Amino acid sequence: MNTKALHLISYGMYVVSSRKGDRINGQTCNTLIQVSSEPPIISACINKGNLTHEYIEDSGVFSASILAQDTPLNVIGRFGFKSGRDVDKFDGVNYKLGETQAPIVLDNTLAYLEAKVIKRVDVGTHTIFIGELVASEVIGEGEPMTYAYYHLVKRGTTPKTAPSYHKD
Amino acid sequence: MNTKALHLISYGMYVVSSRKGDRINGQTCNTLIQVSSEPPIISACINKGNLTHEYIEDSGVFSASILAQDTPLNVIGRFGFKSGRDVDKFDGVNYKLGETQAPIVLDNTLAYLEAKVIKRVDVGTHTIFIGELVASEVIGEGEPMTYAYYHLVKRGTTPKTAPSYHKD
Repeated sequence: MNTKALHLISYGMYVVSSRKGDRINGQTCNTLIQVSSEPPIISACINKGNLTHEYIEDSGVFSASILAQDTPLNVIGRFGFKSGRDVDKFDGVNYKLGETQAPIVLDNTLAYLEAKVIKRVDVGTHTIFIGELVASEVIGEGEPMTYAYYHLVKRGTTPKTAPSYHKD
Repeated sequence: MNTKALHLISYGMYVVSSRKGDRINGQTCNTLIQVSSEPPIISACINKGNLTHEYIEDSGVFSASILAQDTPLNVIGRFGFKSGRDVDKFDGVNYKLGETQAPIVLDNTLAYLEAKVIKRVDVGTHTIFIGELVASEVIGEGEPMTYAYYHLVKRGTTPKTAPSYHKD
């Protein structure tokens, strides 16, 4: 078994956000996909230890901002390598509350999606939140950032809490 | 709601294969992801009407070949736009049977993964098969083909049975 094979799976880069009461939080996520077409259903795989996990569990909603290729590394650092338990990640960030009242990051965002959770699947370290799409808009122009671009061009790293984290 | 937002989600391109007894089949798939790191768990979203769905349901195993960017369109056409009910998709294809006895496409493949299904999640038109990784190897060099590359550069199209199919 050579787990380097897993590194060749392709992903995008997203900020997945949610709320708990009037508290809001978000995190980078590379595992957002569409899993059904009619009606549109999306899923996102979130580490159980993350604050966003707690918020999605509580509110049953999440948003996803599809990041542009030219998103600055410090934006990804803010949402990917800090915890909402320590800092207010949305402080100084341009965002709005969506139809689900989940926050939606607007800067560096090509498009956003909002979903209501219909299923939760326990996969060990992570939960796959499966949600029916309730809102979606295109708000920017450009190429989406891929996970490969983030690693190869931006020299970005992977937090230990990501499904795709490998020690090697 | 603008479902064009969904088009900006990033995916790779894979051939996901399985078996039923000694019959084998495979199909293109863009929804393969890693969903947990320890142990490595992957998932693939497969249309309920597809023969590969029936085979994974039966055998509880699947393989995924991660396709290279220069994979010819006719390979994708063979696995993506034909049914194993009508043709033997592996006829003339270079493949091997893996540890799970699922077939693994070897040509145009950068790496492959094999998994044993541990959960099945009904998401309407599709099932998400979640599998623990039991084998994986890197067998080629190059860039993986992304779904965006397939559409933009290769001018490839999406079958109606894909989770990401849109009428528009």
